[in-house]
Amino acid sequence: MTDTLNRSTPAAPAHDPADGVRAYELDRQYVFHSWSAQGALKPFVAASAQGSYVYTYDGETYLDFSSQLVNTNIGHSHPKVVAAIQQQAAQLATVAPSHAALVRGEAAKRIVEKAGPGFSQVFFTNGGADAIENAIRMARLTTHKHKVLSTYRSYHGNTGAAIAATGDWRRMPNEYAYGHVHFFGPFTYRSEFFSETPEQECARALRHLERTIVAEGPGTIAAILLESVPGTAGIFAPPPGYLEGVRALADKYGIVWIADEVMAGFGRTGDWFAWQNPTINPNRATPDLIAFAKGVNSGYVPVGGVVISPTIAEAFADKVFPGGLTYSGHPLAAASIVASIDAMTDEGIVENARMIGEQHLGPGLRALAEKHEMIGDVRGLGVFWALDLVTDRATREPVSVDVVNRLKAELMARKVLPFAAENRIHVVPPCIVTPDQVADALQAYDGAFSAVAQK
Amino acid sequence: MTDTLNRSTPAAPAHDPADGVRAYELDRQYVFHSWSAQGALKPFVAASAQGSYVYTYDGETYLDFSSQLVNTNIGHSHPKVVAAIQQQAAQLATVAPSHAALVRGEAAKRIVEKAGPGFSQVFFTNGGADAIENAIRMARLTTHKHKVLSTYRSYHGNTGAAIAATGDWRRMPNEYAYGHVHFFGPFTYRSEFFSETPEQECARALRHLERTIVAEGPGTIAAILLESVPGTAGIFAPPPGYLEGVRALADKYGIVWIADEVMAGFGRTGDWFAWQNPTINPNRATPDLIAFAKGVNSGYVPVGGVVISPTIAEAFADKVFPGGLTYSGHPLAAASIVASIDAMTDEGIVENARMIGEQHLGPGLRALAEKHEMIGDVRGLGVFWALDLVTDRATREPVSVDVVNRLKAELMARKVLPFAAENRIHVVPPCIVTPDQVADALQAYDGAFSAVAQK
Repeated sequence: MTDTLNRSTPAAPAHDPADGVRAYELDRQYVFHSWSAQGALKPFVAASAQGSYVYTYDGETYLDFSSQLVNTNIGHSHPKVVAAIQQQAAQLATVAPSHAALVRGEAAKRIVEKAGPGFSQVFFTNGGADAIENAIRMARLTTHKHKVLSTYRSYHGNTGAAIAATGDWRRMPNEYAYGHVHFFGPFTYRSEFFSETPEQECARALRHLERTIVAEGPGTIAAILLESVPGTAGIFAPPPGYLEGVRALADKYGIVWIADEVMAGFGRTGDWFAWQNPTINPNRATPDLIAFAKGVNSGYVPVGGVVISPTIAEAFADKVFPGGLTYSGHPLAAASIVASIDAMTDEGIVENARMIGEQHLGPGLRALAEKHEMIGDVRGLGVFWALDLVTDRATREPVSVDVVNRLKAELMARKVLPFAAENRIHVVPPCIVTPDQVADALQAYDGAFSAVAQK
Repeated sequence: MTDTLNRSTPAAPAHDPADGVRAYELDRQYVFHSWSAQGALKPFVAASAQGSYVYTYDGETYLDFSSQLVNTNIGHSHPKVVAAIQQQAAQLATVAPSHAALVRGEAAKRIVEKAGPGFSQVFFTNGGADAIENAIRMARLTTHKHKVLSTYRSYHGNTGAAIAATGDWRRMPNEYAYGHVHFFGPFTYRSEFFSETPEQECARALRHLERTIVAEGPGTIAAILLESVPGTAGIFAPPPGYLEGVRALADKYGIVWIADEVMAGFGRTGDWFAWQNPTINPNRATPDLIAFAKGVNSGYVPVGGVVISPTIAEAFADKVFPGGLTYSGHPLAAASIVASIDAMTDEGIVENARMIGEQHLGPGLRALAEKHEMIGDVRGLGVFWALDLVTDRATREPVSVDVVNRLKAELMARKVLPFAAENRIHVVPPCIVTPDQVADALQAYDGAFSAVAQK
């Protein structure tokens, strides 16, 4: 029995429990999992999903506060997106990228319009990693320089160049690519610059970035690659003024600014793109390239891409762009993008994410922190929040993996799908989440923190 | 008027011609195309497609002898695959890779079974390039060596490590990745070893490979990466015995053999995998890893992956595999794989590809070569053929790009979607192609060659 059983969650649709057993067995026998040692895995089995809920074959209902991998921004099984996929699958599921397809153009038009002034075209990829790859390729080929600057606390994907751009441990076994230089970005709660205020952190982080540019040689640097809000690394929005400072340095030294919006884009922060969010970037400094994936269609069909400024697009008017992939601009993915962007626009889903952050998740999580000593920092916006867990609020010493694993288990027991990373719980529901669902989840987090603290 | 209008092609379904105009305009305004200078593109606009045919908004019907990018092996809009996508889209379109989903396990099981003894698990990716990336990663992490040997005449994808493994010009602007060594594979018609027979070519190519291994240092080489039948490079099946020789060298020097079956796999050669085809590999030498994409689900949903031997899978039982991606094992892709493999099995589609190659395409293309001096070589098997076009059969001097472009235009005028690469026309219809459709296409090729020769 848990302390949230009284909540008004929908009943799971009918599934055959035997299918759940078979799903688990097939998975363990035949499926090789990412980022894991294969031996000890005990995966959760999902049967179906709707809105903010995921259902099991055993008739259980879980409240999805992970958005899977922070990608189901529109929630699960949105009827308009499902219908668009179904219709397109019957008409034209796949087409060579060299041909044109109406739905691909419609998708590109919508993405360019959401990106706003400063952007003219879209190059589609299969996901976020190859979006980053191709953004880097464009930056290198237009600047005729090769180095890419990115931050240590970042994740940019898993392919050759993308993984080497990544700042976290995942890059280390994969550093095939040359020419990536890592620096520290702003992060006030765990400052690398001995700052005490966001203003100080902003100024010092910009000084550090410029010193790195000068020390590496501006004539060697093609791109500054930044998650507009670093996601898996801990969800820390840059202090206001930082992105404007990055823009100024990029202009000063002839460097392309690539905004990695794979996780932060398409509603997550309560704006279409995180760099557009006025609390992050009040003067709307504009990047040269935007890499996207995940939220663009909530991952219903694998897709990603790069939104391109006119200057960079025009550099390839007469020069061959040496990048491509079979599924670039895939019609099924494009159909899901069109339906998803239209539904998010018509239904005010991005505005909902902002309202939830301001009125429910933000206040609720801060109240939780007042109650639970372990929560050292609550930070975020929209539906993009992190609880930074510490053994001591003064030293900010992170809790152990064991504590986080116990929290995850307590949350699963309370029928909430959690998202955990290092010493943190990321609170990342879909953008459609309701105030009632937030209240249910807050109750579950509260119970889980109490249970772990008691042990 | 063309010389094939009398053929019995199905009428195109009703579409609105205005949509075709809009599709073209949106494409030119908003879509950034791969492998192209953007300025002069005039893309063909596809409206819908069925079986071997693609329809335009203007009511025209094209016979698809390109399979788009050599990926629609099951043909367009196969009803069982479409239905599976539609059903899965409504139930569970996306799920985190760490969770389990029945349809993912079912897909992995089928792929492992088609790969046969020697394989136990599947790691899913978004496409072919990241399949190669992850296969290389597995080889490096299990051999504790880093170099990858691949051939000059090859294409392995477009991401950091995959593009650097590639042998053709597309790698050159993208050589981020270190540790890739290129050698020459066997190709009797354009031998690098002064061979006059396939037997000679096989022996000499193996000697060259071993000399390269020894000269590079066997203690530095993680993998030999080979398209089982090089595809975009010109469709040249290795002489019988070559793959067996590769296996022996890999065993001798502790090297992982990665078979790139992205284009050649899933029916293209008339077998499930090209390395299994007895005309290529009579003693069935077995690779350690198989990279796949395209034909596994005919590209209806973007997907790829690596089929893994038990030895390599077990190496990651207790050791974390440091690779992953948001859409690994995507349920929509998995559903399309299950339906596609089942339909290809039940309907004998792979056997049809073999029959078509042996009884219709092979004989038909050879007859064409007797008539047209320009066709210097006809080679292939299944539904995987190349016409190697020359200015002089004695010198084998390739024809110019201009000649190939004129041929493409003549084929489009005859309502055949062609596939061209360098000095070649690749004849690569779906595996479901019928003898009548082959006859129609042969008539169109015949007319196109005559028209170009007359100019």
